[in-house]
Amino acid sequence: MIRTSLTDVFFTKEDVEKLHESVLHILSTVGVKIENEEARGIYSQHGARVDGDIVYIDEALLNKALKTVPDNFELQGFDRSVAIGLDHDPVIIPTNGTPLVLNFDGSYSDTDLHDVINFYKLIDTSDVIGITSQIAIDVPGLDKSRDRYLPQLALMLKYSHKPIFNVLTATENNYKKSDLETGTREGIQFAKKFFGIEDKYVCYSGGCVISPLAVGWESMAYFMGEIKENQPLSITACSMTNLTAPGSLFGSVVQDAAAVLSIVVLSQLMNPGLPCMYTSLSSMTDMRYVQLCMGAPEFSLITLAHIALANYYRIPARMGGGLGDAFKADYQAGVESTVGLMAPMLTQTAMIVHGVGTMGSFNLTSYEKFIEDEETIRYLKRMRKGFDVSDDHQKKALKSIEKTGPRGNYLSGRTPKEYREDNYLASAVFNRKGCKENTREEEGDIRDRAKKIYDARMDSYKLPDLSLEQKKLLNTELPEGFKFEI
Amino acid sequence: MIRTSLTDVFFTKEDVEKLHESVLHILSTVGVKIENEEARGIYSQHGARVDGDIVYIDEALLNKALKTVPDNFELQGFDRSVAIGLDHDPVIIPTNGTPLVLNFDGSYSDTDLHDVINFYKLIDTSDVIGITSQIAIDVPGLDKSRDRYLPQLALMLKYSHKPIFNVLTATENNYKKSDLETGTREGIQFAKKFFGIEDKYVCYSGGCVISPLAVGWESMAYFMGEIKENQPLSITACSMTNLTAPGSLFGSVVQDAAAVLSIVVLSQLMNPGLPCMYTSLSSMTDMRYVQLCMGAPEFSLITLAHIALANYYRIPARMGGGLGDAFKADYQAGVESTVGLMAPMLTQTAMIVHGVGTMGSFNLTSYEKFIEDEETIRYLKRMRKGFDVSDDHQKKALKSIEKTGPRGNYLSGRTPKEYREDNYLASAVFNRKGCKENTREEEGDIRDRAKKIYDARMDSYKLPDLSLEQKKLLNTELPEGFKFEI
Repeated sequence: MIRTSLTDVFFTKEDVEKLHESVLHILSTVGVKIENEEARGIYSQHGARVDGDIVYIDEALLNKALKTVPDNFELQGFDRSVAIGLDHDPVIIPTNGTPLVLNFDGSYSDTDLHDVINFYKLIDTSDVIGITSQIAIDVPGLDKSRDRYLPQLALMLKYSHKPIFNVLTATENNYKKSDLETGTREGIQFAKKFFGIEDKYVCYSGGCVISPLAVGWESMAYFMGEIKENQPLSITACSMTNLTAPGSLFGSVVQDAAAVLSIVVLSQLMNPGLPCMYTSLSSMTDMRYVQLCMGAPEFSLITLAHIALANYYRIPARMGGGLGDAFKADYQAGVESTVGLMAPMLTQTAMIVHGVGTMGSFNLTSYEKFIEDEETIRYLKRMRKGFDVSDDHQKKALKSIEKTGPRGNYLSGRTPKEYREDNYLASAVFNRKGCKENTREEEGDIRDRAKKIYDARMDSYKLPDLSLEQKKLLNTELPEGFKFEI
Repeated sequence: MIRTSLTDVFFTKEDVEKLHESVLHILSTVGVKIENEEARGIYSQHGARVDGDIVYIDEALLNKALKTVPDNFELQGFDRSVAIGLDHDPVIIPTNGTPLVLNFDGSYSDTDLHDVINFYKLIDTSDVIGITSQIAIDVPGLDKSRDRYLPQLALMLKYSHKPIFNVLTATENNYKKSDLETGTREGIQFAKKFFGIEDKYVCYSGGCVISPLAVGWESMAYFMGEIKENQPLSITACSMTNLTAPGSLFGSVVQDAAAVLSIVVLSQLMNPGLPCMYTSLSSMTDMRYVQLCMGAPEFSLITLAHIALANYYRIPARMGGGLGDAFKADYQAGVESTVGLMAPMLTQTAMIVHGVGTMGSFNLTSYEKFIEDEETIRYLKRMRKGFDVSDDHQKKALKSIEKTGPRGNYLSGRTPKEYREDNYLASAVFNRKGCKENTREEEGDIRDRAKKIYDARMDSYKLPDLSLEQKKLLNTELPEGFKFEI
């Protein structure tokens, strides 16, 4: 295993403390705008200064809240659970929320219900991904004449063996029958009923703060619902340097950390011990194009700073990811995914969000890149496993060198165990056959190899074997054409 | 700047000492086969045990030799010099020695003289590359009826403002008029005469050990010539796990370190204070295809172990690189370059060899990937620059957050200095324009963007302004068609 965190390459203990002191300064003197009256009342009851809709949090209150954030928790899915937190390797979540897809034929199209289902199958058959999610929400193909909030949740439950991340939050757009906090709670109650479980975590979801230093009323409705229903939550910052964050990385991180912590504090004041995760998807802005750059080295540096802070606070970190700015699954996409993934993959990060498939600065999900990013994660998993310096490997290595001697040959009848332990053999999406005329022909384009893997996965996918009760429950919400025949 | 080395993520101090002790054990008990009588005599004179052609080196002799290896040195080129060593950032060297090129039109062809010249121009106009080299040697297009050793060196001198790495060594194939040590010396003397410099380093070159634990007679001829002519040398190991190295990474590193150190020791016994560099290009073997995999995560791990050892010995480390197994400059190539480059770019590495352009497991140089790898290095340079936590950035950040307040906007009239300091704006080869219909049209393929940059660089290239004497000297060796008109 890795010996220390990649964050140590970039931050000393003093650097992290300097960031933390600045966060505290902002939390206690500039404050965070909280667009929810009930929440402001709770802060106030616990001694926070509240001025209008601005909440100020001091060191004592922060420390009190941090004490009860759990290090680890377990998320239950249909037939398996996933352990998440400070004592576990990162759990991978795929792309989510992108309006466009890049198809295998190179065309771009609006993400539709057909794509959402394809990706459920791809996620379910992945050896890399631990938790499923919607790759897009409120997509064309859903019946707009009725609330679309529960139908989309029902669809995810229908297709997933794995635990779920409900990307979808109830919004004015997809949930009209009541207020959004009620909508959030209705969704969670639906999931609890589906699983037949009241006392476990079955529906984790996430909301975003608005940079700088605010939590809007829609996100607050979600956070309040999630906290009251006792389900894990993630609090996400996604700012742009020089636009919604200061120009420096230091400023970006300090500001976003303050906003995220304000909701961590609220969650623990309302429901001490509730699992919550600290998420940053903030990055730099390329001011030439006024674009948020999700494949930039600064994205990785900002992520690492947030991981260092989350670790310092002992809040499970949830970070991106295999993102990027490229529009095609090309060389640039490969570099961007690796630069983005190395941060969470070589640190104590609980969860990697946008782990595979996202590109085009959050606008695009690529079928091809999804399959390819999985392999990048396998490569980085091999890195994370580290360099084996055990006594066993030392002893065997010395013996083998002594036996072989100068100019000898190590190839013997049997492949030694230590070769199998130390050498990862890549999946077929990466080409390792050596550049010869016949292999150039055979191997073709990486897109063709990804497509083959995709086809095989789609063929092998099987629906979860739901009980009659579960099917009946889902049928009450599933869109037409997706209901079970009972 | 980065706060510590990426090697620390993978190795504790004790891990490195464990590797070192194993290296010592192999050096003193298994020994290294040295195919050169004069060299064996020198080891023996200095107290090493020599048995047949095997040389055994003990701790005292190793430590004595390590004491005189210089931390840093300077390499002089036509109109500039480059500082190399433990106190400097990595100097980048491009691809070298690949028999095939991948052209912009997607075709593969044998590397010829035309390609070698194109890459001289590309290297000379690069803001990333510090030292030039031949991308291939003994290529078609050279007159085979005469010795081709000096003509190729003369060509490199003709085209390069930058200091040179003479990839080419005198071999039985390209130098017939005398023995190979004499050939090596003749080449160096030619370069010294060209520069009109006797007392500086002007011609660094490198030789390979043969794994396991041997230095062949051809490489020995080169090493002896370089040491006697007082020019910097690099000693390279390039082994394959389970074939020419043990199956484990531990065994691979220990064995190769021992072989490299044997020549470091020789250089210091013969010429104390001579700059020498410790190079590894070893990697894992994918036994399914019996292929050396240069884009594998194990390559990065092996490289990191060698960097840790080289730093421990205080020998400047020279490591790869932007390599890979892909045949096309595709997603896989991007991942592989990043995985390979992150090791030397985030550590104390003196020089990065095969920094840009190489792929296909050492067999292929891609024009496109060359331009793209340059950008990957710029991304990793930004990572290496680190996260600025200076008092200045802290002060400005806090002031800016206080002034802007919750839900404010940071965009003001002037772009702040800290934005410019912290945010790297990518070159045009990477696309950051956001995925919209018009930008998709505009940006095209990354290959087209690379080609545009290539064309502009070729247009802007200018030959060094040599003196009449220099031209006359080169004319004595330059191939027909490449001579100066005087």
